[in-house]
Amino acid sequence: MKRIKLIVAYDGTNYCGWQLQPNGVTIEGVLNEALFRLLGENIRVIGASRTDSGVHSLGNVAVFDTETRIPPDKISYALNQRLPEDIVVQESSEVSPDWHPRHCDSKKTYEYRILNRMFPLPTRRLDTYFVYRKLDLMKMRQAAGYLEGTHDFKSFCSVNTPVEDTVRTIYECSVERSGDIITIRVTGSGFLYNMVRIIAGTLLQAGTGILEPEEMSLILAARDRTAAGPTAPAHGLTMIGIEYL
Amino acid sequence: MKRIKLIVAYDGTNYCGWQLQPNGVTIEGVLNEALFRLLGENIRVIGASRTDSGVHSLGNVAVFDTETRIPPDKISYALNQRLPEDIVVQESSEVSPDWHPRHCDSKKTYEYRILNRMFPLPTRRLDTYFVYRKLDLMKMRQAAGYLEGTHDFKSFCSVNTPVEDTVRTIYECSVERSGDIITIRVTGSGFLYNMVRIIAGTLLQAGTGILEPEEMSLILAARDRTAAGPTAPAHGLTMIGIEYL
Repeated sequence: MKRIKLIVAYDGTNYCGWQLQPNGVTIEGVLNEALFRLLGENIRVIGASRTDSGVHSLGNVAVFDTETRIPPDKISYALNQRLPEDIVVQESSEVSPDWHPRHCDSKKTYEYRILNRMFPLPTRRLDTYFVYRKLDLMKMRQAAGYLEGTHDFKSFCSVNTPVEDTVRTIYECSVERSGDIITIRVTGSGFLYNMVRIIAGTLLQAGTGILEPEEMSLILAARDRTAAGPTAPAHGLTMIGIEYL
Repeated sequence: MKRIKLIVAYDGTNYCGWQLQPNGVTIEGVLNEALFRLLGENIRVIGASRTDSGVHSLGNVAVFDTETRIPPDKISYALNQRLPEDIVVQESSEVSPDWHPRHCDSKKTYEYRILNRMFPLPTRRLDTYFVYRKLDLMKMRQAAGYLEGTHDFKSFCSVNTPVEDTVRTIYECSVERSGDIITIRVTGSGFLYNMVRIIAGTLLQAGTGILEPEEMSLILAARDRTAAGPTAPAHGLTMIGIEYL
């Protein structure tokens, strides 16, 4: 028996998110089925990031245990032949039998992409959130700066989430523009439910002048979801990758 | 009666190309229907570039004549509300009644995008052509250089196309890499059928070493489609825009 780690990229458009569901096709479900067809074993992968419906990934991580004799690094190729075009395993490797993708210290990076121009662009409609209003990049950056460090992010967590400890560390929260696309890149020790999308929705309010960057301290201090901005739509979000420490 | 010019962006994935067809949904057909719903007039737009199935656009041009009183620059907004998400008019303006998008001197720009990495990326599967082989960018650039200028491009035109004059001018043919994506950008006076895709297929052969850049002169001189490389797939191609001179 060995434990295999997969790095999984996907276009989340056509899925009800990562996590297995009784109704609806999920990334996890499709991976399990493809692994069954490849290995003949009933496998249930364990994912690092249970991304929501419509959220994309370049580097989510999953593990599973198998008796297969296929060399670990070849599993990716064999598995991709059994996966649809919108899910592609980028790497497969063996890890120690007790390694768990959610129980190890890690830095996770997400990007939230905003298409900021007069009209939408059809070719980017699935992986960017279209905003036609003029956005003040400097104010978005200033606001982002308040989020860096270790804080209680309760204001940036969807309500009714049963999490006790809402303290997280954000190592970096940057805002860059390249052409029409503004990218909010957030690297953190971990994220609460909808946290990056609420950060994006709040930074957008700083960009349009609805709130001043300085108000970010108050929003954090409030420990109240209603203090922060709206949850930005799922399709602008991409899980970039996870660095295990 | 006034003539309106539209700049049209689209994701070509779900269409049988630009041009009206008896069977199959086309960009032109969808535009005509949306204009009918908006204006109540039977309109048949005239397009500048009759792109193939799967080819995308940021700036194709179309014109039509109308009696409407909607201000020309507002037509884009009203029309977009009647168009699907994958077709978005970027601009509408009035032009002189005799202006024709194919009968005026122009510079057209296309980009062919290659995703060059070990594994495909699901989020870019619809607008890039995935190539895992290592590509020599310098050789691709050298080969591209031979295409610049005024040449007989018969070798770069799909056979059985009833065109007599196969001489065209390419003002620029550049090859740039940004991260995993190699972009072949071609600006020309006009293009023969499948010309940019055959250029891309041939430059890819230069990139993989199947042909040497110097052989481009021979390929041009041959005036024979079989001398050039294969036609690269449609979905890597995007019509960028048209500059009228």
